[in-house]
Amino acid sequence: MKANAVLDYLKACRKKHLDTLIRYASFPSISAQSSHAGDMRACSDWLRNHCESIGLSARLVETPGHPVVMATTRRISRSGSAKDRPHFVLYGHYDVQPPEPLELWKSDPFKPTVRQGALFARGASDNKGQHLAHLNAIEAYLRTGTPLPCDVTFLIEGEEEVGSDHLPKVVRKHRRELACDAMVISDTGMPSRECPALTYSLRGLAALEIHVQGPDRDLHSGLYGGAVNNPAMALAQVLAQVRDARGRIVIPGFYDGVRPLTAVERGHARRLPHSPEAIRKMLGVPALFGEQGYTEYEQRTARPTFEINGLTSGYQGEGSKTIIPSWASAKITMRLVPGQNPAKIKEAACRYLQSICPPSVRLTLKKGHDGEPYWVDPTGPTSAACLRALEKAFGKPPVLLREGGSIPIVNTFSRELGVDVLLLGLALPDDNLHSPNEKFDLENYYRGSVLSAELWPELAISTKG
Amino acid sequence: MKANAVLDYLKACRKKHLDTLIRYASFPSISAQSSHAGDMRACSDWLRNHCESIGLSARLVETPGHPVVMATTRRISRSGSAKDRPHFVLYGHYDVQPPEPLELWKSDPFKPTVRQGALFARGASDNKGQHLAHLNAIEAYLRTGTPLPCDVTFLIEGEEEVGSDHLPKVVRKHRRELACDAMVISDTGMPSRECPALTYSLRGLAALEIHVQGPDRDLHSGLYGGAVNNPAMALAQVLAQVRDARGRIVIPGFYDGVRPLTAVERGHARRLPHSPEAIRKMLGVPALFGEQGYTEYEQRTARPTFEINGLTSGYQGEGSKTIIPSWASAKITMRLVPGQNPAKIKEAACRYLQSICPPSVRLTLKKGHDGEPYWVDPTGPTSAACLRALEKAFGKPPVLLREGGSIPIVNTFSRELGVDVLLLGLALPDDNLHSPNEKFDLENYYRGSVLSAELWPELAISTKG
Repeated sequence: MKANAVLDYLKACRKKHLDTLIRYASFPSISAQSSHAGDMRACSDWLRNHCESIGLSARLVETPGHPVVMATTRRISRSGSAKDRPHFVLYGHYDVQPPEPLELWKSDPFKPTVRQGALFARGASDNKGQHLAHLNAIEAYLRTGTPLPCDVTFLIEGEEEVGSDHLPKVVRKHRRELACDAMVISDTGMPSRECPALTYSLRGLAALEIHVQGPDRDLHSGLYGGAVNNPAMALAQVLAQVRDARGRIVIPGFYDGVRPLTAVERGHARRLPHSPEAIRKMLGVPALFGEQGYTEYEQRTARPTFEINGLTSGYQGEGSKTIIPSWASAKITMRLVPGQNPAKIKEAACRYLQSICPPSVRLTLKKGHDGEPYWVDPTGPTSAACLRALEKAFGKPPVLLREGGSIPIVNTFSRELGVDVLLLGLALPDDNLHSPNEKFDLENYYRGSVLSAELWPELAISTKG
Repeated sequence: MKANAVLDYLKACRKKHLDTLIRYASFPSISAQSSHAGDMRACSDWLRNHCESIGLSARLVETPGHPVVMATTRRISRSGSAKDRPHFVLYGHYDVQPPEPLELWKSDPFKPTVRQGALFARGASDNKGQHLAHLNAIEAYLRTGTPLPCDVTFLIEGEEEVGSDHLPKVVRKHRRELACDAMVISDTGMPSRECPALTYSLRGLAALEIHVQGPDRDLHSGLYGGAVNNPAMALAQVLAQVRDARGRIVIPGFYDGVRPLTAVERGHARRLPHSPEAIRKMLGVPALFGEQGYTEYEQRTARPTFEINGLTSGYQGEGSKTIIPSWASAKITMRLVPGQNPAKIKEAACRYLQSICPPSVRLTLKKGHDGEPYWVDPTGPTSAACLRALEKAFGKPPVLLREGGSIPIVNTFSRELGVDVLLLGLALPDDNLHSPNEKFDLENYYRGSVLSAELWPELAISTKG
């Protein structure tokens, strides 16, 4: 069977592929620091060359910031149309987080070092190692002459760690070239090496700022205290009425459309390594607290929240200042789940907050940014393809994962390209992403390339019928 | 009648006394600004000399800061004891607030200027003009050879605007010299020129800081939001439970000992010029708010409060940051009324706040400074003496006033000397204390000296029997 040639190649090339990752991870491609602009350029040049060296046609797409590397298996015909076979796009990023504080690193963040079966380097796991695993798989197909059942285009940007500001425009401009049957992103995690995972749900976001205006200046609390409402107290009383004692948000309509967890989902959730006590300890809180009737995992992935991100009012310096503050404000972000519409929820929140504001102060609301929740049907054909590939590559039954966070580019892709975005994360929980001593597990690096090798045929099948 | 000589002298000397005030107010005696140390010294020297020039024995009492001017009618005998007649102490301060912003002054703050029947100068009303009125009255007694029925000692400090840090020690050190039958302070206000007033009640103070600790660091609100209590929300819910919808503080025991307003007090309160709508407009709030069952004047003078002076939590910069803050805090001062004990109230507040804190966060309390409420029996003999003198001097029935603020030195005097402290304020509501264009009404300056002339005999009578 031809597939064996691909897997044999991957097995045979483990050392070579490690060397490639070591080379790649040695670029200090820190997008946030302008002093590293030259390194960003060198890294993107290296990546384009590497893609070409394995047989892809690759180029840099320039942006006002750092370039995007685009590399594809496609051979575009002279008429400009691609061959009529499935096409998938794999997204990744070659930029990395700043490595500081340097003194906490056991080895130089840009001198990749193997220890305990892992490669320690900034960017090893986030995200160079993860998309390189996919490139290794494509290399295996191309070098062994194994026909790919589909085309794959790599879209590797250099601004993920600074907000992906220029990516939406690149996607929009190259929409025809990026038109595909599904997208794959390996930039999230799996619960453990024994627990390969497909992430099928992300929470969205809706930001608000609440401003409660009282008197037109700070007042002497002795002269006026008692006869005028304190805006900080008014704000506290408004905020307190948002969540009840059972942890439910009482904004009318808040839970409208929220998908209840299915038996299948709860079954998958039960298989996750899970210890509320360990999480409690890790966070350093005296007790966990969340919406009654849901597990801690469900609370932070499948249920929406109303979080206060910041409070500001009056005097915040040393000692005391006897004033009634003129105003008080709160920054809010609501985490939303699939089924909720950020604009509608924001509207409902504003209506409710206005309705409970006492007449002795003025409440104004400033709507902030949105992020749509994301959802791929975990029982759909692309999900099924991913689960089959995961099981083959890792030899363990995979789990379906919900993530509590948001990944804004997922919405960009989903909106611009209109396809499922499949999140097949290879990072382990202890990979120290964004922290000192980031590492990428070498077994996961290898399994990731096997996953990729298994994935394309499975995905190609999923598009038929 | 001899008293006529005193009053005639005051009437005859109006121009001369205006010139004295102009001279006195021309010293930029700004205690807060070290560049004015020389002016402070010159001002205190001038004041001591002035006191001596009118016949008092005067001296400077040095402190680590600015000196205190002490001047007395007393002739201390060789044995060290004073003559056996009533003794009263008048407190005032020769330091002034900084005049900034200078561009808002219509005339130079230290070139005293007469306009519209008032003298415009920094310190004219707060407090040079007010205690100078008393010095003018004593001058009238001494210059006309009218026997004073008592001794009067002036204690004029130079650090009132910077916290009177050294005054308690001076009072303690000179306790025997300052031992007296009552103290008089003219450093507050009267509601209008038609409404001379004795202030018989001040609110006290108890400061607290509430800290609500959640996770041991700021958390990603996507990854953890929903499963861990948000400390800012916990703080809001704790604070919200302190005051009910009727404006009452629900801390158990909070109102224990609070004196209900008597019919006499409410009668006096009704005579005050009073317009809640004017106050609402002046403060710029959509509606006033306070404890039900009390007028706005009663709410801010005769009822205790629980004020939030400041709120701090999480992210307060531009835009949003999607965190669960690690902690949230609130600065609190409770304004207390006569009958309440600051230490006990603080204890009750701490107990209540701890009792309503949810188990998912840790609440800690830091007790701040205290200030005792102050109270002089408005039906007692010293109050009666003041009311008689006020009526004689202003020709109008005086009112009894409660003040919502605190005057810490009043407690110092009350504690150290154990006597009634009588607050006979001469400032008008539009005197712009601490603001640009401070002024002192010249009619009030004159009436103040008449009040002082009438006051000493009345007070001397009040001590008999």
